[in-house]
Amino acid sequence: MSRITILMNCPDQKGIIADVTNYIHKNKGNIEYIDQYVDRVNSIFFMRLECEINSKVFNETFKKELNFSIGQKYSIDFNIYENELKPKMGIMVSKYDHCLYDILSRHQSGELNVEIPFIISNHNTLKHIADTFKIPFFYIPILEKTKKKISDKHLKIFNKYSVDFIVLARYMQIIPTSIIKKFQNKIINIHHSFLPAFPGAKPYHSAYERGVKIIGATSHYITEELDAGPIIDQDTTQVSHLNSIQDFIGKGRDLERIVLSNAVKLHVDRKVMVYKNKTIIFS
Amino acid sequence: MSRITILMNCPDQKGIIADVTNYIHKNKGNIEYIDQYVDRVNSIFFMRLECEINSKVFNETFKKELNFSIGQKYSIDFNIYENELKPKMGIMVSKYDHCLYDILSRHQSGELNVEIPFIISNHNTLKHIADTFKIPFFYIPILEKTKKKISDKHLKIFNKYSVDFIVLARYMQIIPTSIIKKFQNKIINIHHSFLPAFPGAKPYHSAYERGVKIIGATSHYITEELDAGPIIDQDTTQVSHLNSIQDFIGKGRDLERIVLSNAVKLHVDRKVMVYKNKTIIFS
Amino acid sequence: MSRITILMNCPDQKGIIADVTNYIHKNKGNIEYIDQYVDRVNSIFFMRLECEINSKVFNETFKKELNFSIGQKYSIDFNIYENELKPKMGIMVSKYDHCLYDILSRHQSGELNVEIPFIISNHNTLKHIADTFKIPFFYIPILEKTKKKISDKHLKIFNKYSVDFIVLARYMQIIPTSIIKKFQNKIINIHHSFLPAFPGAKPYHSAYERGVKIIGATSHYITEELDAGPIIDQDTTQVSHLNSIQDFIGKGRDLERIVLSNAVKLHVDRKVMVYKNKTIIFS
Amino acid sequence: MSRITILMNCPDQKGIIADVTNYIHKNKGNIEYIDQYVDRVNSIFFMRLECEINSKVFNETFKKELNFSIGQKYSIDFNIYENELKPKMGIMVSKYDHCLYDILSRHQSGELNVEIPFIISNHNTLKHIADTFKIPFFYIPILEKTKKKISDKHLKIFNKYSVDFIVLARYMQIIPTSIIKKFQNKIINIHHSFLPAFPGAKPYHSAYERGVKIIGATSHYITEELDAGPIIDQDTTQVSHLNSIQDFIGKGRDLERIVLSNAVKLHVDRKVMVYKNKTIIFS
Repeated sequence: MSRITILMNCPDQKGIIADVTNYIHKNKGNIEYIDQYVDRVNSIFFMRLECEINSKVFNETFKKELNFSIGQKYSIDFNIYENELKPKMGIMVSKYDHCLYDILSRHQSGELNVEIPFIISNHNTLKHIADTFKIPFFYIPILEKTKKKISDKHLKIFNKYSVDFIVLARYMQIIPTSIIKKFQNKIINIHHSFLPAFPGAKPYHSAYERGVKIIGATSHYITEELDAGPIIDQDTTQVSHLNSIQDFIGKGRDLERIVLSNAVKLHVDRKVMVYKNKTIIFS
Repeated sequence: MSRITILMNCPDQKGIIADVTNYIHKNKGNIEYIDQYVDRVNSIFFMRLECEINSKVFNETFKKELNFSIGQKYSIDFNIYENELKPKMGIMVSKYDHCLYDILSRHQSGELNVEIPFIISNHNTLKHIADTFKIPFFYIPILEKTKKKISDKHLKIFNKYSVDFIVLARYMQIIPTSIIKKFQNKIINIHHSFLPAFPGAKPYHSAYERGVKIIGATSHYITEELDAGPIIDQDTTQVSHLNSIQDFIGKGRDLERIVLSNAVKLHVDRKVMVYKNKTIIFS
Repeated sequence: MSRITILMNCPDQKGIIADVTNYIHKNKGNIEYIDQYVDRVNSIFFMRLECEINSKVFNETFKKELNFSIGQKYSIDFNIYENELKPKMGIMVSKYDHCLYDILSRHQSGELNVEIPFIISNHNTLKHIADTFKIPFFYIPILEKTKKKISDKHLKIFNKYSVDFIVLARYMQIIPTSIIKKFQNKIINIHHSFLPAFPGAKPYHSAYERGVKIIGATSHYITEELDAGPIIDQDTTQVSHLNSIQDFIGKGRDLERIVLSNAVKLHVDRKVMVYKNKTIIFS
Repeated sequence: MSRITILMNCPDQKGIIADVTNYIHKNKGNIEYIDQYVDRVNSIFFMRLECEINSKVFNETFKKELNFSIGQKYSIDFNIYENELKPKMGIMVSKYDHCLYDILSRHQSGELNVEIPFIISNHNTLKHIADTFKIPFFYIPILEKTKKKISDKHLKIFNKYSVDFIVLARYMQIIPTSIIKKFQNKIINIHHSFLPAFPGAKPYHSAYERGVKIIGATSHYITEELDAGPIIDQDTTQVSHLNSIQDFIGKGRDLERIVLSNAVKLHVDRKVMVYKNKTIIFS
């Protein structure tokens, strides 16, 4: 038996759920989870479905016929995954170690069902952590004039290890458009504020300056516009006048760890769909 | 067109979703919302479905045939509601006014889609609020020796006004078994602690005594065992050594208001199912 | 015996606490609460102190001497309050009723230690609530060309009733500079977003558009720059793709109620000090 | 200059703050932080004070005189610490790795101002983590009949490394009374429920069984009564019917990490005082 996850969306119409569940049923699949959502503003239908199905039945013919018999009828955009296949997750970091430690210890504890083929950094600072967890570390410093070359180096590594998605665990560099285009909705960033408040650099400093009583963190997919991509998860915590900027940074670390790891888990479990720069998060 | 909500549960089997959605589709209904959940420990399937259907199609025949063709096949327990019908919600209170004020102002603001035919109290203290909001108020004092008679009085009022469910908005009396049995999963209580911590009387005092750093509130359906019924909603807030018992009570009021009104909204929207003393809450 | 609250701030120097507490002690006052905070960035010392003192000792001489002997030495800015004196709180509203209901029911429950001499509104919509709670209601519609006159009318009412501070319980009009200047750090507003995100009109719509996973509310003192005054309290709650704009507004109401009433309580208890557009909130 | 922290408590009386701050002032100390709290139920005064003082002034004479001149007058119980001295923190674990990883990575990041001289475990499972972070690891298995001997072994290690306090980072064994008595309010435990709900073994299973909508974690000092010691920190998170016991455990891990590390930080910063099985937590 195979366990598969189907993500789909299409213009909202009558009969989709009945047709899709019928198709699975006809193929002797057992639907174990179904969740559906209709965006009424844009009239778009979204569905996530997990089912158990005979591995022999689940083949290219199954997919083709599904697409042919139902997909074309409703103009459905399908994504079908075999749950057994572990996604490959590349990590990029700069100098802050807390998110990296967090991801690697969760991975080692078995919390994250991924392979981590490499860590790329523009500094050598965190190499010892990569060594500790026995993950290949590529130190690729960034100089203004060589930026083009560098993104080529990055892409080469991504391709060599066939990464499925990339996590920016406090990577403090702009990702070039060329890479973003190749990894649409596949590069997860953690921003250390509750976006859209305090985009850009030094959000804790700006939050301190403004005298806010809550600070936050936001995980989102990278798009070309800085800190404006689809938000996956956000969380906030209370601060007070007693807290210095250093305290903000310290409290923020806990938020960043959790908000980033939540996003990674949701992405790995194929629970995120993106539409018009917003996410649908299935439970 | 009618908008209807179907709640159902049955032993988990293959094909249920396909059969039910097909049935709706065949009757030209448009499924606007479907959410399903399988309790894997007990192998029970739960589903909530909202659809728009021609008012002429949605009649006793529709229901009978649904039950006959699909319900019997899978041993489904169905509950079908017409969304237009406003439930009738009785309120019982004692002396605390905050939950009562909250419910009545939400009702007057249009937040709660119910009728409120009466308020019953064992004290006369809050009559002025009932008057303010122009809702009939029945003062029924409770004396040990007349308890039997009193529950008869209560039942009489419930029946006279055909209440669908009852909200105990800080009603400080035990509800007798005879009433609980007639209103199973239809009497919503607010308890001022995060159950199962601090059941029974004076939970804020016990919480203060124990030196906890969080206090909470719990809304649940009343069952015969005190404070042990199915939990609908819970929330907590932080306290510190600086807070006196009075502060606990004050902070708790905000929790009670919100946790109770959340439970009422979920119940009114038919988003709660109960199984083995636990709730399934649809989103 | 009188109970008094002293708020003070001055450039940070050695010996302030010792001198002030000595002075109280010498006058046979009993300090029941002391809390102090030093803003290390600006080197400013803040202190809040509550003490019980003989009502005969606590007079103009006491204050003058305190100012003369200690205030001048350290350049202290003092504010001294008698706890028994109830502040007078004016309310301004437009059409939304939830914050008004909340404040008035808390007041009636004894939660808010203030007098409420009047409610002003630019609409007649909420008059019935004022009537219900027996508070004078002034309907003062706003037309572009008469704005100057209107703020004169407002000020006249403020003066007539000697209000100490004003609460904008979802008052949807800009307060003119002339009034702000006369009531510096005395006009409390509730804004329905976690500022600085989504200032200005329709923040829930903007939040929905951006696809955030948390929404918030912010209470702050009004300053001339819109939604940029010192923040008193903030809170956030989670939302998801399932929530419509109407849901955002509904969930937001609960935040607004609590965040506004928290701010009012802190202000009434003289627990807020403002410095450089930020608040110090004593516990 | 030395920076020192003074914790003190005594029966509540007039003049304490004035006398203590005067004494510091007289010795040319600069008070940088003062926070005080009066437990009005038990009439106990608590104070925490940080000051900068000439290292030559801060000596045994300073302490003795403080005790003699003021301590005896008010029956004060003093604890005075030099902030530069790093406390020595022993760690005990069993098989769960998440709290251990969290503490060790925070330590390595510089978040925790302690020395960690050793990790003791009743299993060999986590030795590799100790090796990774280069901390001595003692594997001391526990057999019913040798329990007495084992606690002697533990004490021997505690003494050899002169530990100041001990953190039980999910150590699944009862600490014997003999050790608890020697380390009163110096053994910090993390319990995986919001105490007093679900004390003892398998709280996540009990929480699942009860159908709660929030789960929690509690850090507390160990006392002889199981899971009944003074609570240092607590936090909760929402769960739903969708979550399996495994999900509870997974979500709980994040709570445990944060609630334990908060407690450790508060303890290390000398911000915790214990009185009558409750904690006073200074900010």
